[in-house]
Amino acid sequence: MADLREIRALTFDVFGTTADWCSGVAREVEAVLAPKGVTLDWVAFANRWRKEYQPAMGAVREGARGYVTMDVLHREMLDVALAEYGIDVLSMAEKDALGLAWRRLQAWPDVVPGLMRLKQKFICVALSNANMALATHMAKHAGLPWDVILGSELVGTYKPMAPVYDSAPRFLDLKPEHVMMVACHVWDLRAAQTRGLRAAFVARPDEYGAGVSGPAPEPGEFHLVVASFGELAGALGV
Amino acid sequence: MADLREIRALTFDVFGTTADWCSGVAREVEAVLAPKGVTLDWVAFANRWRKEYQPAMGAVREGARGYVTMDVLHREMLDVALAEYGIDVLSMAEKDALGLAWRRLQAWPDVVPGLMRLKQKFICVALSNANMALATHMAKHAGLPWDVILGSELVGTYKPMAPVYDSAPRFLDLKPEHVMMVACHVWDLRAAQTRGLRAAFVARPDEYGAGVSGPAPEPGEFHLVVASFGELAGALGV
Repeated sequence: MADLREIRALTFDVFGTTADWCSGVAREVEAVLAPKGVTLDWVAFANRWRKEYQPAMGAVREGARGYVTMDVLHREMLDVALAEYGIDVLSMAEKDALGLAWRRLQAWPDVVPGLMRLKQKFICVALSNANMALATHMAKHAGLPWDVILGSELVGTYKPMAPVYDSAPRFLDLKPEHVMMVACHVWDLRAAQTRGLRAAFVARPDEYGAGVSGPAPEPGEFHLVVASFGELAGALGV
Repeated sequence: MADLREIRALTFDVFGTTADWCSGVAREVEAVLAPKGVTLDWVAFANRWRKEYQPAMGAVREGARGYVTMDVLHREMLDVALAEYGIDVLSMAEKDALGLAWRRLQAWPDVVPGLMRLKQKFICVALSNANMALATHMAKHAGLPWDVILGSELVGTYKPMAPVYDSAPRFLDLKPEHVMMVACHVWDLRAAQTRGLRAAFVARPDEYGAGVSGPAPEPGEFHLVVASFGELAGALGV
């Protein structure tokens, strides 16, 4: 087990790990569509919208498309979901506003108190596929007390590409082993570890809706496995 | 007078405006040199060191030199000041450590309480010539509660070049006129205004030492002229 006493900065994934995107997006979709007489499973729609996340980033990661922001991808992904559901009741302005629902998410209940503890000892960094505006407006909306916001936009590609992880120690002038990635997604942590960062898995058992989570880690593959930001603070001695 | 009710973000200069670099650097220099028997006017030395600031950035602004961080420039500027004073008592490691004195500054007393008020209504942004590591470590040291840190490193040149000012509304997805630059330097505010940002001058009468400040604004040239971050909050209705 690597020595965690030298950790200086924690880099946090945002969507899923920090923010409860599923219930937040479902609520925003319902608020716009229900008054127009649409009825559907709002959580299922949120998941359908989010399902376009990895393919939407694929073209940018592979270089087939120049970098575009996650705000732009979210807007495009919304069109895909609406088309698949056969929903054609929103004006362009309404779709544009709904596309920014991801700026209006709330954090999981443990997040803000956990970050307030962790900030006493560590530089707490948003390291997300969100562009700067998306991450900043969401942080203001949810009251996330980041010390600094980094992420995909500053390097022009998306996680899990190496430049995103490499950018955190570089921008902070720290060694990679003094930076710990915190996420609820194993693919994110595995990529971070290949770049020399430490890794902490935070379980989010309701990420995709009540009782629906992503893949669990293999035993021992990450430096820490915790159930909340508070438990992370305890494990790191704060 | 422009309408200030639509301001959404405040972009703050750091050295001088937010941080008291002069007394902080003077203290750090004294702490290293006095034990070695050196006696001099520490505030004068801090000013001599800082005097290399504009020329050091000049080559980068003009494109004669690729972007290098302010941490690197501070280290080079220290060598110039030491040589001019004929001081040759520091090891390389001591000079490297002293070169980072700028990461260990304190804020003026009005800054943290003022920012806490301003954050209730505005996105509070560091927009400085400091590189990300310098701005981040200094913010942690001084307890500055920035919402987001932007600045020269993200665009590869230095204020007062236009890309630094343009980057703030771009990264925040705001119109330039909804962003207000806050600084104690007229050159910084004048450049910000040419890029469409609003401008607030904060007087720092002791920036270069007790009673020694930079040029004052012309009457009416900026949107606001205040004496503290608290007065700025009051003027902006927080």
